[in-house]
Amino acid sequence: MSTRSNPIAVFDSGLGGLTVVRQLMRRLPAESIVYFGDTARVPYGIKSAETVTRFAEENIEFLEAFAPKLIIAACNTASATALPRLDGKYTVPLCGVVQPGARAAVRKTRNRRVGVIGTEATVGSSSYTRCITELNPDVRVVARACPLLVPLVEEGRTSGDPVVRMVLKEYLKPLKDARVDTVVLACTHYPLLKPGIRAVMGPGVQIVDSARETARDAADILAASGRLARANTKAVHRFFASDHPERFAKLGKRFLGRPLGAVRLVQPELLNGHLALRVAEQG
Amino acid sequence: MSTRSNPIAVFDSGLGGLTVVRQLMRRLPAESIVYFGDTARVPYGIKSAETVTRFAEENIEFLEAFAPKLIIAACNTASATALPRLDGKYTVPLCGVVQPGARAAVRKTRNRRVGVIGTEATVGSSSYTRCITELNPDVRVVARACPLLVPLVEEGRTSGDPVVRMVLKEYLKPLKDARVDTVVLACTHYPLLKPGIRAVMGPGVQIVDSARETARDAADILAASGRLARANTKAVHRFFASDHPERFAKLGKRFLGRPLGAVRLVQPELLNGHLALRVAEQG
Repeated sequence: MSTRSNPIAVFDSGLGGLTVVRQLMRRLPAESIVYFGDTARVPYGIKSAETVTRFAEENIEFLEAFAPKLIIAACNTASATALPRLDGKYTVPLCGVVQPGARAAVRKTRNRRVGVIGTEATVGSSSYTRCITELNPDVRVVARACPLLVPLVEEGRTSGDPVVRMVLKEYLKPLKDARVDTVVLACTHYPLLKPGIRAVMGPGVQIVDSARETARDAADILAASGRLARANTKAVHRFFASDHPERFAKLGKRFLGRPLGAVRLVQPELLNGHLALRVAEQG
Repeated sequence: MSTRSNPIAVFDSGLGGLTVVRQLMRRLPAESIVYFGDTARVPYGIKSAETVTRFAEENIEFLEAFAPKLIIAACNTASATALPRLDGKYTVPLCGVVQPGARAAVRKTRNRRVGVIGTEATVGSSSYTRCITELNPDVRVVARACPLLVPLVEEGRTSGDPVVRMVLKEYLKPLKDARVDTVVLACTHYPLLKPGIRAVMGPGVQIVDSARETARDAADILAASGRLARANTKAVHRFFASDHPERFAKLGKRFLGRPLGAVRLVQPELLNGHLALRVAEQG
């Protein structure tokens, strides 16, 4: 049903998913993208699987009004907790960030010891561990929840900040002790702290950035079904947030690596299908 | 309309408001209390005044089903941003934590230099500064947003933790430089870090804990209108949360200073009045 020029829809609890959009833009410059960041209910990482699933459903129902050819949950928490429960519910293909990240980790590790860092909910769901050991049962996974990293990034701190350095040292200790040779950044905020993570883990350790892997997966899915946009298509990028659109545009620049343009306010939990369609038609 | 045995209703974005409940229980042991923590949408402190107001309205409408004689916004962000917009909307009296905290600060300062620490939204609203300078225009207020303190407390860290110590030193520097003699803890999570705050600020500086001041205010409001519960009343304490009731009960113990008992799950944004009433009738 979806045509080649239809957009790719992406949602996240907030800003982090823009790191996936950045990789999509780099890899698939002809694709139109509709992004929704649920900034009214951010963060998802400390919430239950039931609540995150309900939020994800509302976000997906809003994005469906744009007739997307693919919907990406660019949020590790939603990918890990909600996607398994929504499997088969929608006609539009859904993809998350866990599978691509897990696959890359299994491909990259030499000593079969992989570290995973993410939110409380992502680590609590054991999704990465399950996914990695399904791909290769010999891989040992050491997962660690790092609840402070998202607020540190959202406060604008970077790898050089002394608080960031101290916190990373503490969080990454069990991964270093287990001598992992690969670390999965299982949260879309973490790529912004890559230099600090690299500094703590040392030069021999490979970093898997789920955002990059997810963009590669999305390209593969679209290519396999003949739905990649034609090269000469003029891509349109639209951004929506459920709260603070100005703050979203301002902070989002760091995640996207370029200005976002206008960000529009929309509250999916207040929308029914008709209204969503009207928002979509208006732009 | 409300009788003396009706409950006091308290809401907060999450756990922090339990510090107000703790002070209410201490000061008013005969009062029944209904508490709602909006853990599905926590935190409020990074969200817009419009969004926080909408959340506060939904919370109040849920609590109204319990026929409370007083509703307390035990959340600095909601008190600072939503309450001024909801003035006069409800028949039940509403009170917040800003006025009591501001009054105590003005009463306590000797050198007329007051520091205020709180969330981004609370500090951004300038509510404390406005309220304090209305009470005494000669008082100079130095306000500082401390976005990491809530996640630090929620991760279970206390004043002795080296990350907490480093962060407090950084956040409190402008208050020390301005030589304030009084610091208002304008966030209900911060009393849990009081020893650390005291250590950085030094022994001459007074700490205003809004929770304690708010309980005092609530007692005054009820006494003035002859609605304090009779001394021999058997108080009933009920707790509701919009997500993760078990986590709420577990972490809540630290804030309340005692076990909470059963915490029930309720989602006010999904409730209409009838349903709320049914939840209330069931207990």
